[in-house]
Amino acid sequence: MQQAPETPVFDPESIDGAVADHVERALADYLATRHAGMAEMAPSFGSAVGSLAEFVLGGGKRLRPTFAWWAWRGTGGAGAGEQADAVLRAVSALELIQACALVHDDLMDASAMRRGKPTVHVSFAARHRERGWLGESERFGAAAAILLGDLALAWADDMFAGSGVDPRRQADGQVPWRAMRAEMLAGQYLDVLTQAKGDESAEAALSVARMKTAAYTVERPLHLGAALAGAPEPTIAALRSFGADVGLAFQLRDDLLGMFGDTDVTGKPAGDDLREGKRTLLMSVGLANADAAGRTADAALLRGALGDDDLTTATVERARELLTDLGAVAELDRRIDELTGTALATLAAADLDAPAGKVLSDLAVAATRRAH
Amino acid sequence: MQQAPETPVFDPESIDGAVADHVERALADYLATRHAGMAEMAPSFGSAVGSLAEFVLGGGKRLRPTFAWWAWRGTGGAGAGEQADAVLRAVSALELIQACALVHDDLMDASAMRRGKPTVHVSFAARHRERGWLGESERFGAAAAILLGDLALAWADDMFAGSGVDPRRQADGQVPWRAMRAEMLAGQYLDVLTQAKGDESAEAALSVARMKTAAYTVERPLHLGAALAGAPEPTIAALRSFGADVGLAFQLRDDLLGMFGDTDVTGKPAGDDLREGKRTLLMSVGLANADAAGRTADAALLRGALGDDDLTTATVERARELLTDLGAVAELDRRIDELTGTALATLAAADLDAPAGKVLSDLAVAATRRAH
Repeated sequence: MQQAPETPVFDPESIDGAVADHVERALADYLATRHAGMAEMAPSFGSAVGSLAEFVLGGGKRLRPTFAWWAWRGTGGAGAGEQADAVLRAVSALELIQACALVHDDLMDASAMRRGKPTVHVSFAARHRERGWLGESERFGAAAAILLGDLALAWADDMFAGSGVDPRRQADGQVPWRAMRAEMLAGQYLDVLTQAKGDESAEAALSVARMKTAAYTVERPLHLGAALAGAPEPTIAALRSFGADVGLAFQLRDDLLGMFGDTDVTGKPAGDDLREGKRTLLMSVGLANADAAGRTADAALLRGALGDDDLTTATVERARELLTDLGAVAELDRRIDELTGTALATLAAADLDAPAGKVLSDLAVAATRRAH
Repeated sequence: MQQAPETPVFDPESIDGAVADHVERALADYLATRHAGMAEMAPSFGSAVGSLAEFVLGGGKRLRPTFAWWAWRGTGGAGAGEQADAVLRAVSALELIQACALVHDDLMDASAMRRGKPTVHVSFAARHRERGWLGESERFGAAAAILLGDLALAWADDMFAGSGVDPRRQADGQVPWRAMRAEMLAGQYLDVLTQAKGDESAEAALSVARMKTAAYTVERPLHLGAALAGAPEPTIAALRSFGADVGLAFQLRDDLLGMFGDTDVTGKPAGDDLREGKRTLLMSVGLANADAAGRTADAALLRGALGDDDLTTATVERARELLTDLGAVAELDRRIDELTGTALATLAAADLDAPAGKVLSDLAVAATRRAH
């Protein structure tokens, strides 16, 4: 019987030993330089940019750079030295894309809080209100959020383009870099459109999940890391396939947590997805099963709860019972297990350099079994 | 007596002979490829992206790429061949940055019309309303405008990075490319902030004009073209200085047209700057002169008109008379002449390759004397 490889032990000073910390440091260095330049050029924008830097450095699991780093390591990329540092910078730039996505998403969703703090548009609206400035505070907050999100997106490209990666590899990296930003924005738009159309189909929910999470969060970061290492096409294809499955499983786990997650752990109110009217696969399966079983009243309760701002705890509780009872929870668990299984088999067959294979499989399992 | 050089005659098939047309074609080619990719990946976003492509191809003077092209030509860049085509693509990408700036700016300003058509956020809100979709139409329109503006910004970087310019030159070009996007966003933020604070100072008006117009529209495009040609530092400095002066003169001319321009020619309602509450240098000088002369009632009329949504034609007419009578118009004309004079002297001393010097000086004169 084959023995499962043990979790590798790393030198805690190495990038391998603390990817997220090194990403954090690369971002802090980059932002400090750009922020200083901005503060000199336009002091009042410099102060606004300080809020963006705090936002970027104020949290996040650094999941995208971590996936990219391990794809680089698993396909021949060095763990230390000049090119390793350059690749660390290139993949850290993914966090600036994510900053743009979050700042703009919070504005589009009119979300008030993120990571336990007021969102960017809310905090700039408050600044406007406190100082008694002219015009509408909400409009000022929205303008600040739009411009700071744009700046994060422009800086992501600057950080990526100026990372110092070997020019030929940099050109290879442009392929996933280009695709990823387009997929992220397409996913956001499809998400907004699906809610607007009230589209309950599994296809719509899966399209959004595939683009917004699977491609943007896992598949393309892996593609990027492998492209920067000059990996052969079959290895890239295997990593992408692994990433697409893991990413989708990750989103389905998120659907479950959005309904059943512990508020203390997720940091979001219970039933938040329901209140926001998110057409998740969980909801889609629940509704389809209710309709198929002729459970009209149950289907009506779920449809009525979707997007209801004044949702009560009792209704959230009832919706949870129904989704469980209708087999939607079991169906999602089954899909998550299936996707994770396929993903891990693909990964094993890709035969990455040790220890990247083990690390990526641990990441996959953690991301799809996580409770937050 | 030295004779002024004549306006050069170009082969109409060459890039030199029709820069704007070639820019248009480069953009159309690029957008067609990206649009097709998007339509395949996510059909419903593909349709939204069609609106963005129409917007980019639907007008504009292509001023930024034109300045950049002639800086390239004036500092040793070829007029035809592989690198000329690559540089044409690189500088055409400036129009995609501008598309992002306009789409997001129209949303921030809540502008309904642009180039005689509904703005992006307005047209997507209308689509939402017509189809009877769920949620607020305005919010859907705003989301579409945010995401399409983001996409334009991401595509600008993709088009620039993938232009095919020689890698060493491309790296040189990163310097102005980086600075320009930061300055554009800083200028937009300062503009919003200046209106919010009701800052009437000449310094505030000049800061916004320097960043939003001078740097972003003229100085940095010239810097970019020269950097792509590998121009020596003193030549780049001269072109930048020329661009900063011309760009500021261009904005001051815009201030005058925003108050006095013929609606049929400018495409904007008369007194639009006044209605929008823009703190222009024209207004700043007018108010300072009124205060200095103790003309309290005149100052009060101007201040009352600034940002007044219900502005009457009579008040616009009176504000025009006052700005003229207070010497603000003459002061702006004087500054425009002075800036144009300095700019042209700097340009002459830079000794660019013919015919770029003549073309740039014609562009400078046209931009600062234009009636629209």
